[in-house]
Amino acid sequence: MAKSMTLLWGAGSPPCWRVMITLEEKKLQGYKHKLLSFEKEDHKSQEVLQINPRGQLPAFKHGDDIINESVGACLYLENQFKSQGNKLIPDSPPQQALMYQRMMEGLTLTEKLNLVVFYDLYAPEGERHDSAVKRNKDNLVAELQRWEGYLENVAAGSYLAGAFSLADVVAFPNIAYPFRYGLSIGRYPKLAKYYSLLKDRPSIKTTWPPQWYQIAQRSEILKDL
Amino acid sequence: MAKSMTLLWGAGSPPCWRVMITLEEKKLQGYKHKLLSFEKEDHKSQEVLQINPRGQLPAFKHGDDIINESVGACLYLENQFKSQGNKLIPDSPPQQALMYQRMMEGLTLTEKLNLVVFYDLYAPEGERHDSAVKRNKDNLVAELQRWEGYLENVAAGSYLAGAFSLADVVAFPNIAYPFRYGLSIGRYPKLAKYYSLLKDRPSIKTTWPPQWYQIAQRSEILKDL
Repeated sequence: MAKSMTLLWGAGSPPCWRVMITLEEKKLQGYKHKLLSFEKEDHKSQEVLQINPRGQLPAFKHGDDIINESVGACLYLENQFKSQGNKLIPDSPPQQALMYQRMMEGLTLTEKLNLVVFYDLYAPEGERHDSAVKRNKDNLVAELQRWEGYLENVAAGSYLAGAFSLADVVAFPNIAYPFRYGLSIGRYPKLAKYYSLLKDRPSIKTTWPPQWYQIAQRSEILKDL
Repeated sequence: MAKSMTLLWGAGSPPCWRVMITLEEKKLQGYKHKLLSFEKEDHKSQEVLQINPRGQLPAFKHGDDIINESVGACLYLENQFKSQGNKLIPDSPPQQALMYQRMMEGLTLTEKLNLVVFYDLYAPEGERHDSAVKRNKDNLVAELQRWEGYLENVAAGSYLAGAFSLADVVAFPNIAYPFRYGLSIGRYPKLAKYYSLLKDRPSIKTTWPPQWYQIAQRSEILKDL
Protein backbone atom coordinates (compact mmCIF):
# COMPACT_ATOMS: atom_id res chain seq x y z
CA MET A 1 0.00 0.00 0.00
CA ALA A 2 2.61 2.50 1.13
CA LYS A 3 4.67 1.82 -2.01
CA SER A 4 2.01 3.56 -4.11
CA MET A 5 2.39 6.73 -2.02
CA THR A 6 4.68 9.67 -2.81
CA LEU A 7 5.49 12.52 -0.45
CA LEU A 8 7.50 15.59 -1.41
CA TRP A 9 8.39 17.39 1.80
CA GLY A 10 10.38 20.17 3.41
CA ALA A 11 12.27 19.65 6.66
CA GLY A 12 10.65 21.18 9.72
CA SER A 13 7.48 22.24 7.90
CA PRO A 14 4.63 21.48 10.32
CA PRO A 15 2.20 20.52 7.52
CA CYS A 16 4.72 18.03 6.09
CA TRP A 17 5.56 16.70 9.54
CA ARG A 18 1.87 16.01 10.29
CA VAL A 19 1.56 13.78 7.24
CA MET A 20 4.79 11.94 8.09
CA ILE A 21 3.69 11.31 11.70
CA THR A 22 0.36 9.95 10.43
CA LEU A 23 2.07 7.65 7.92
CA GLU A 24 4.19 6.22 10.77
CA GLU A 25 1.20 5.83 13.11
CA LYS A 26 -0.75 3.98 10.38
CA LYS A 27 2.22 1.66 9.72
CA LEU A 28 2.60 2.99 6.19
CA GLN A 29 6.38 2.90 6.14
CA GLY A 30 8.02 2.40 2.77
CA TYR A 31 6.35 5.26 0.93
CA LYS A 32 8.42 7.09 -1.66
CA HIS A 33 9.63 10.44 -0.41
CA LYS A 34 11.92 13.27 -1.38
CA LEU A 35 13.27 16.02 0.82
CA LEU A 36 13.12 19.39 -0.93
CA SER A 37 14.56 22.77 0.01
CA PHE A 38 12.38 25.82 0.65
CA GLU A 39 15.53 27.97 0.48
CA LYS A 40 16.19 26.79 -3.07
CA GLU A 41 12.50 27.36 -3.92
CA ASP A 42 12.09 23.68 -4.78
CA HIS A 43 8.43 24.02 -3.78
CA LYS A 44 7.89 26.14 -6.90
CA SER A 45 9.43 23.49 -9.18
CA GLN A 46 7.52 21.59 -11.88
CA GLU A 47 7.95 18.40 -9.87
CA VAL A 48 5.94 19.91 -7.01
CA LEU A 49 3.48 21.88 -9.16
CA GLN A 50 2.46 18.68 -10.95
CA ILE A 51 1.12 17.33 -7.64
CA ASN A 52 0.45 20.54 -5.74
CA PRO A 53 -0.53 23.39 -8.08
CA ARG A 54 -0.33 25.81 -5.13
CA GLY A 55 3.43 25.26 -5.10
CA GLN A 56 3.43 24.26 -1.45
CA LEU A 57 4.70 21.34 0.54
CA PRO A 58 3.63 18.71 1.33
CA ALA A 59 2.79 17.39 -2.11
CA PHE A 60 1.28 13.99 -1.47
CA LYS A 61 -0.35 11.34 -3.58
CA HIS A 62 -1.66 7.84 -3.04
CA GLY A 63 -1.76 6.17 -6.44
CA ASP A 64 -3.43 8.81 -8.58
CA ASP A 65 -5.28 10.40 -5.67
CA ILE A 66 -3.84 13.73 -4.61
CA ILE A 67 -4.31 15.19 -1.16
CA ASN A 68 -1.92 18.02 -0.33
CA GLU A 69 -3.73 19.77 2.50
CA SER A 70 -2.08 18.37 5.62
CA VAL A 71 -5.16 17.99 7.83
CA GLY A 72 -7.05 16.56 4.86
CA ALA A 73 -4.25 14.04 4.23
CA CYS A 74 -4.26 12.96 7.88
CA LEU A 75 -8.06 12.49 7.82
CA TYR A 76 -7.81 10.59 4.52
CA LEU A 77 -5.10 8.23 5.78
CA GLU A 78 -6.95 7.53 9.03
CA ASN A 79 -10.17 6.82 7.11
CA GLN A 80 -8.56 4.66 4.43
CA PHE A 81 -6.51 2.62 6.91
CA LYS A 82 -8.85 2.53 9.90
CA SER A 83 -7.89 -0.89 11.19
CA GLN A 84 -4.16 -0.54 10.49
CA GLY A 85 -1.71 0.86 13.05
CA ASN A 86 -2.98 3.23 15.72
CA LYS A 87 -6.53 4.51 15.69
CA LEU A 88 -6.31 8.31 15.46
CA ILE A 89 -9.97 9.34 15.75
CA PRO A 90 -11.70 8.20 18.96
CA ASP A 91 -15.23 6.74 18.71
CA SER A 92 -16.76 8.04 21.94
CA PRO A 93 -18.70 11.26 21.31
CA PRO A 94 -17.07 13.39 24.07
CA GLN A 95 -13.54 12.44 23.03
CA GLN A 96 -14.34 12.72 19.35
CA ALA A 97 -15.78 16.24 19.81
CA LEU A 98 -12.71 17.29 21.80
CA MET A 99 -10.40 15.69 19.24
CA TYR A 100 -11.90 17.56 16.26
CA GLN A 101 -12.00 20.77 18.31
CA ARG A 102 -8.30 20.64 19.20
CA MET A 103 -7.30 19.37 15.74
CA MET A 104 -8.82 22.41 14.06
CA GLU A 105 -7.61 24.80 16.77
CA GLY A 106 -4.14 23.47 15.93
CA LEU A 107 -4.38 25.47 12.69
CA THR A 108 -5.03 28.67 14.67
CA LEU A 109 -1.86 27.97 16.63
CA THR A 110 0.01 27.53 13.32
CA GLU A 111 -1.33 30.83 12.02
CA LYS A 112 -0.45 32.83 15.14
CA LEU A 113 3.00 31.29 15.33
CA ASN A 114 3.71 32.00 11.65
CA LEU A 115 2.69 35.65 12.03
CA VAL A 116 5.47 36.10 14.60
CA VAL A 117 8.19 33.90 13.12
CA PHE A 118 7.64 34.86 9.48
CA TYR A 119 6.47 38.46 9.96
CA ASP A 120 8.87 39.83 7.34
CA LEU A 121 7.46 37.36 4.84
CA TYR A 122 3.87 38.43 5.48
CA ALA A 123 4.65 42.13 5.69
CA PRO A 124 7.02 43.32 2.94
CA GLU A 125 9.49 46.10 3.66
CA GLY A 126 7.68 49.41 3.87
CA GLU A 127 4.62 47.78 5.41
CA ARG A 128 6.15 46.72 8.71
CA HIS A 129 5.09 48.25 12.01
CA ASP A 130 6.34 47.77 15.56
CA SER A 131 2.70 47.92 16.68
CA ALA A 132 1.89 44.90 14.49
CA VAL A 133 4.92 42.99 15.76
CA LYS A 134 3.79 43.65 19.33
CA ARG A 135 0.18 42.69 18.61
CA ASN A 136 1.22 39.46 16.89
CA LYS A 137 3.41 38.56 19.86
CA ASP A 138 0.63 39.33 22.33
CA ASN A 139 -1.74 37.17 20.30
CA LEU A 140 0.76 34.31 20.26
CA VAL A 141 1.28 34.56 24.04
CA ALA A 142 -2.50 34.41 24.57
CA GLU A 143 -2.72 31.41 22.23
CA LEU A 144 0.13 29.55 23.93
CA GLN A 145 -1.40 30.26 27.35
CA ARG A 146 -4.67 28.84 26.06
CA TRP A 147 -2.90 25.59 25.12
CA GLU A 148 -1.08 25.61 28.46
CA GLY A 149 -4.56 25.68 29.98
CA TYR A 150 -5.79 22.83 27.78
CA LEU A 151 -3.02 20.68 29.20
CA GLU A 152 -3.72 21.73 32.80
CA ASN A 153 -6.21 18.94 33.39
CA VAL A 154 -4.57 16.34 31.21
CA ALA A 155 -3.54 13.31 33.24
CA ALA A 156 0.16 12.45 33.39
CA GLY A 157 1.27 10.69 30.21
CA SER A 158 -1.93 11.70 28.46
CA TYR A 159 -2.63 13.61 25.25
CA LEU A 160 -4.81 16.45 23.99
CA ALA A 161 -7.96 14.35 23.62
CA GLY A 162 -7.48 11.15 25.60
CA ALA A 163 -5.35 8.67 23.66
CA PHE A 164 -2.88 9.97 21.07
CA SER A 165 -4.97 11.26 18.16
CA LEU A 166 -5.04 13.53 15.11
CA ALA A 167 -5.32 16.44 17.57
CA ASP A 168 -1.75 15.68 18.68
CA VAL A 169 -0.60 15.00 15.11
CA VAL A 170 -1.79 18.44 14.01
CA ALA A 171 -0.82 20.47 17.09
CA PHE A 172 2.50 18.89 18.12
CA PRO A 173 4.70 20.31 15.32
CA ASN A 174 3.49 23.78 16.29
CA ILE A 175 4.30 23.15 19.93
CA ALA A 176 7.75 21.75 19.11
CA TYR A 177 8.52 24.85 17.02
CA PRO A 178 8.23 27.47 19.78
CA PHE A 179 10.63 25.51 21.98
CA ARG A 180 13.07 25.37 19.09
CA TYR A 181 12.74 29.15 18.89
CA GLY A 182 13.59 29.58 22.56
CA LEU A 183 10.19 29.43 24.33
CA SER A 184 10.59 29.42 28.11
CA ILE A 185 10.11 26.02 29.74
CA GLY A 186 9.54 27.82 33.05
CA ARG A 187 6.65 29.95 31.84
CA TYR A 188 4.98 27.13 29.88
CA PRO A 189 5.56 24.09 32.08
CA LYS A 190 2.59 22.02 30.82
CA LEU A 191 3.51 22.60 27.19
CA ALA A 192 7.12 21.70 28.03
CA LYS A 193 5.99 18.47 29.70
CA TYR A 194 3.77 17.60 26.74
CA TYR A 195 6.65 18.35 24.35
CA SER A 196 8.92 16.15 26.39
CA LEU A 197 6.35 13.31 26.47
CA LEU A 198 5.84 13.33 22.71
CA LYS A 199 9.31 13.92 21.37
CA ASP A 200 10.30 10.31 22.09
CA ARG A 201 7.18 8.75 20.61
CA PRO A 202 8.43 6.52 17.76
CA SER A 203 6.32 8.17 15.03
CA ILE A 204 7.65 11.57 16.05
CA LYS A 205 11.25 10.57 16.75
CA THR A 206 11.54 8.84 13.36
CA THR A 207 10.23 11.89 11.53
CA TRP A 208 12.12 14.52 13.55
CA PRO A 209 13.28 17.27 11.14
CA PRO A 210 16.81 16.19 10.16
CA GLN A 211 18.36 19.65 10.33
CA TRP A 212 17.11 20.08 13.90
CA TYR A 213 19.76 17.57 14.98
CA GLN A 214 22.45 19.75 13.45
CA ILE A 215 21.36 23.06 14.92
CA ALA A 216 19.88 22.49 18.37
CA GLN A 217 18.10 25.82 18.51
CA ARG A 218 17.47 28.00 15.51
CA SER A 219 17.05 31.32 17.21
CA GLU A 220 15.81 32.86 20.42
CA ILE A 221 13.05 34.84 18.77
CA LEU A 222 10.43 33.52 21.22
CA LYS A 223 12.64 33.68 24.34
CA ASP A 224 10.74 36.57 25.94
CA LEU A 225 7.22 35.32 25.29
CA MET B 1 -31.06 13.79 19.32
CA ALA B 2 -31.20 17.28 17.85
CA LYS B 3 -33.03 18.53 20.96
CA SER B 4 -29.85 18.06 23.01
CA MET B 5 -27.96 20.39 20.64
CA THR B 6 -27.48 24.13 21.08
CA LEU B 7 -26.14 26.51 18.45
CA LEU B 8 -25.37 30.17 19.08
CA TRP B 9 -24.86 31.81 15.70
CA GLY B 10 -24.38 35.04 13.80
CA ALA B 11 -26.20 35.71 10.53
CA GLY B 12 -24.07 35.39 7.40
CA SER B 13 -21.01 34.06 9.23
CA PRO B 14 -19.60 31.31 6.98
CA PRO B 15 -18.44 29.16 9.95
CA CYS B 16 -21.95 29.30 11.49
CA TRP B 17 -23.58 28.66 8.15
CA ARG B 18 -21.49 25.51 7.58
CA VAL B 19 -22.74 23.97 10.83
CA MET B 20 -26.35 24.88 10.01
CA ILE B 21 -26.15 23.34 6.53
CA THR B 22 -24.69 20.16 8.01
CA LEU B 23 -27.43 19.95 10.65
CA GLU B 24 -30.04 20.18 7.87
CA GLU B 25 -28.28 17.62 5.68
CA LYS B 26 -28.11 15.18 8.61
CA LYS B 27 -31.83 15.69 9.36
CA LEU B 28 -31.04 17.18 12.77
CA GLN B 29 -33.78 19.79 12.68
CA GLY B 30 -35.18 20.87 16.03
CA TYR B 31 -31.89 21.88 17.67
CA LYS B 32 -32.00 24.84 20.03
CA HIS B 33 -30.54 27.95 18.46
CA LYS B 34 -30.15 31.64 19.10
CA LEU B 35 -29.26 34.35 16.63
CA LEU B 36 -26.71 36.77 18.09
CA SER B 37 -25.39 40.09 16.81
CA PHE B 38 -21.72 40.67 15.98
CA GLU B 39 -22.44 44.41 15.86
CA LYS B 40 -23.61 44.34 19.50
CA GLU B 41 -20.55 42.24 20.41
CA ASP B 42 -22.82 39.41 21.59
CA HIS B 43 -20.03 37.00 20.70
CA LYS B 44 -18.03 38.36 23.64
CA SER B 45 -20.92 37.78 26.09
CA GLN B 46 -20.80 35.33 29.00
CA GLU B 47 -23.42 33.21 27.24
CA VAL B 48 -21.02 32.61 24.35
CA LEU B 49 -17.82 32.46 26.41
CA GLN B 50 -19.28 29.62 28.49
CA ILE B 51 -19.39 27.45 25.37
CA ASN B 52 -16.72 29.08 23.22
CA PRO B 53 -13.92 30.60 25.33
CA ARG B 54 -12.49 32.21 22.19
CA GLY B 55 -15.55 34.46 22.07
CA GLN B 56 -16.37 33.44 18.53
CA LEU B 57 -19.40 32.10 16.73
CA PRO B 58 -20.54 29.42 16.22
CA ALA B 59 -20.74 28.19 19.80
CA PHE B 60 -22.08 24.66 19.49
CA LYS B 61 -22.72 21.83 21.88
CA HIS B 62 -24.27 18.40 21.68
CA GLY B 63 -25.28 17.45 25.22
CA ASP B 64 -22.13 18.31 27.18
CA ASP B 65 -19.81 17.90 24.21
CA ILE B 66 -18.52 21.16 22.83
CA ILE B 67 -17.28 21.56 19.27
CA ASN B 68 -17.00 25.16 18.12
CA GLU B 69 -14.59 24.88 15.22
CA SER B 70 -16.85 24.80 12.17
CA VAL B 71 -15.02 22.18 10.11
CA GLY B 72 -14.59 20.09 13.26
CA ALA B 73 -18.33 20.34 13.99
CA CYS B 74 -19.20 19.25 10.44
CA LEU B 75 -16.84 16.25 10.69
CA TYR B 76 -18.24 15.37 14.13
CA LEU B 77 -21.87 15.50 12.98
CA GLU B 78 -21.14 13.42 9.88
CA ASN B 79 -19.31 10.82 11.96
CA GLN B 80 -21.87 10.65 14.75
CA PHE B 81 -24.85 10.45 12.39
CA LYS B 82 -23.36 8.48 9.50
CA SER B 83 -26.51 6.63 8.49
CA GLN B 84 -28.88 9.58 9.01
CA GLY B 85 -29.73 12.07 6.27
CA ASN B 86 -27.24 12.62 3.45
CA LYS B 87 -23.82 11.03 3.47
CA LEU B 88 -21.28 13.88 3.37
CA ILE B 89 -17.96 12.01 3.13
CA PRO B 90 -17.65 9.71 0.09
CA ASP B 91 -16.16 6.22 0.59
CA SER B 92 -14.28 5.78 -2.68
CA PRO B 93 -10.61 6.75 -2.26
CA PRO B 94 -10.38 9.16 -5.24
CA GLN B 95 -13.51 11.05 -4.26
CA GLN B 96 -12.61 11.02 -0.58
CA ALA B 97 -9.14 12.44 -1.29
CA LEU B 98 -10.65 15.17 -3.47
CA MET B 99 -13.32 15.88 -0.86
CA TYR B 100 -10.83 16.40 1.98
CA GLN B 101 -8.58 18.42 -0.32
CA ARG B 102 -11.33 20.86 -1.33
CA MET B 103 -12.81 20.95 2.19
CA MET B 104 -9.53 22.17 3.65
CA GLU B 105 -8.81 24.48 0.71
CA GLY B 106 -12.17 26.05 1.54
CA LEU B 107 -10.47 27.57 4.60
CA THR B 108 -7.84 29.19 2.38
CA LEU B 109 -10.64 30.77 0.37
CA THR B 110 -12.17 32.06 3.64
CA GLU B 111 -8.84 33.55 4.69
CA LYS B 112 -8.16 35.31 1.39
CA LEU B 113 -11.70 36.65 1.20
CA ASN B 114 -11.58 37.95 4.78
CA LEU B 115 -8.30 39.77 4.13
CA VAL B 116 -10.03 41.82 1.45
CA VAL B 117 -13.47 42.32 3.01
CA PHE B 118 -12.28 42.93 6.57
CA TYR B 119 -8.92 44.58 5.83
CA ASP B 120 -9.57 47.47 8.23
CA LEU B 121 -10.23 44.97 10.98
CA TYR B 122 -6.94 43.13 10.39
CA ALA B 123 -4.90 46.27 9.84
CA PRO B 124 -5.64 49.01 12.39
CA GLU B 125 -5.47 52.66 11.34
CA GLY B 126 -1.87 53.71 10.91
CA GLU B 127 -0.89 50.26 9.62
CA ARG B 128 -2.84 50.32 6.38
CA HIS B 129 -1.11 50.34 2.99
CA ASP B 130 -2.48 50.58 -0.53
CA SER B 131 0.17 48.04 -1.54
CA ALA B 132 -1.29 45.51 0.93
CA VAL B 133 -4.84 46.18 -0.28
CA LYS B 134 -3.69 45.56 -3.86
CA ARG B 135 -1.79 42.39 -2.93
CA ASN B 136 -4.74 41.00 -0.97
CA LYS B 137 -7.05 41.66 -3.92
CA ASP B 138 -4.60 40.04 -6.36
CA ASN B 139 -4.38 37.00 -4.07
CA LEU B 140 -8.17 36.76 -3.88
CA VAL B 141 -8.48 37.00 -7.68
CA ALA B 142 -5.93 34.17 -8.06
CA GLU B 143 -7.82 32.11 -5.46
CA LEU B 144 -11.20 32.66 -7.11
CA GLN B 145 -9.72 31.80 -10.52
CA ARG B 146 -8.36 28.60 -8.98
CA TRP B 147 -11.88 27.63 -7.84
CA GLU B 148 -13.28 28.64 -11.22
CA GLY B 149 -10.82 26.11 -12.65
CA TYR B 150 -11.87 23.43 -10.15
CA LEU B 151 -15.42 23.73 -11.47
CA GLU B 152 -14.31 23.66 -15.12
CA ASN B 153 -14.54 19.92 -15.40
CA VAL B 154 -17.45 19.43 -13.06
CA ALA B 155 -20.41 17.85 -14.86
CA ALA B 156 -23.63 19.86 -15.03
CA GLY B 157 -25.54 19.63 -11.77
CA SER B 158 -22.48 18.23 -10.01
CA TYR B 159 -20.53 19.38 -6.96
CA LEU B 160 -16.92 19.95 -5.86
CA ALA B 161 -16.16 16.27 -5.20
CA GLY B 162 -18.82 14.17 -6.92
CA ALA B 163 -22.01 14.10 -4.85
CA PHE B 164 -22.76 16.98 -2.46
CA SER B 165 -20.26 16.66 0.40
CA LEU B 166 -18.49 18.48 3.23
CA ALA B 167 -16.34 20.13 0.55
CA ASP B 168 -19.45 22.02 -0.61
CA VAL B 169 -20.62 22.64 2.95
CA VAL B 170 -17.31 24.32 3.81
CA ALA B 171 -16.70 26.18 0.53
CA PHE B 172 -20.18 27.31 -0.48
CA PRO B 173 -20.63 30.09 2.11
CA ASN B 174 -17.38 31.62 0.89
CA ILE B 175 -18.53 31.43 -2.70
CA ALA B 176 -21.92 32.95 -1.89
CA TYR B 177 -20.21 35.85 -0.10
CA PRO B 178 -18.26 37.25 -3.06
CA PHE B 179 -21.42 37.37 -5.17
CA ARG B 180 -23.15 39.24 -2.37
CA TYR B 181 -20.24 41.68 -2.48
CA GLY B 182 -20.67 42.28 -6.19
CA LEU B 183 -18.44 39.63 -7.82
CA SER B 184 -18.86 39.58 -11.61
CA ILE B 185 -20.97 36.70 -12.91
CA GLY B 186 -19.41 37.29 -16.36
CA ARG B 187 -15.82 36.87 -15.21
CA TYR B 188 -16.54 33.87 -12.98
CA PRO B 189 -19.19 31.94 -14.94
CA LYS B 190 -18.49 28.51 -13.40
CA LEU B 191 -18.61 29.86 -9.86
CA ALA B 192 -21.83 31.70 -10.74
CA LYS B 193 -23.36 28.49 -12.09
CA TYR B 194 -22.30 26.56 -8.99
CA TYR B 195 -23.73 29.31 -6.78
CA SER B 196 -26.98 29.21 -8.69
CA LEU B 197 -27.16 25.39 -8.43
CA LEU B 198 -26.63 25.35 -4.69
CA LYS B 199 -28.63 28.32 -3.51
CA ASP B 200 -31.89 26.42 -3.98
CA ARG B 201 -30.74 23.24 -2.25
CA PRO B 202 -33.11 22.79 0.73
CA SER B 203 -30.34 22.69 3.39
CA ILE B 204 -28.92 25.96 2.03
CA LYS B 205 -32.20 27.71 1.30
CA THR B 206 -33.52 26.99 4.82
CA THR B 207 -30.37 28.38 6.43
CA TRP B 208 -29.93 31.39 4.11
CA PRO B 209 -28.74 34.36 6.23
CA PRO B 210 -31.97 36.15 7.18
CA GLN B 211 -30.63 39.67 6.65
CA TRP B 212 -29.59 38.78 3.10
CA TYR B 213 -33.27 38.79 2.17
CA GLN B 214 -33.59 42.36 3.39
CA ILE B 215 -30.53 43.80 1.70
CA ALA B 216 -30.01 42.07 -1.64
CA GLN B 217 -26.38 43.14 -1.98
CA ARG B 218 -24.31 44.48 0.85
CA SER B 219 -21.74 46.38 -1.13
CA GLU B 220 -19.87 46.32 -4.40
CA ILE B 221 -16.46 45.92 -2.83
CA LEU B 222 -15.63 42.93 -5.09
CA LYS B 223 -17.17 44.33 -8.28
CA ASP B 224 -13.85 44.90 -10.05
CA LEU B 225 -12.22 41.59 -9.17
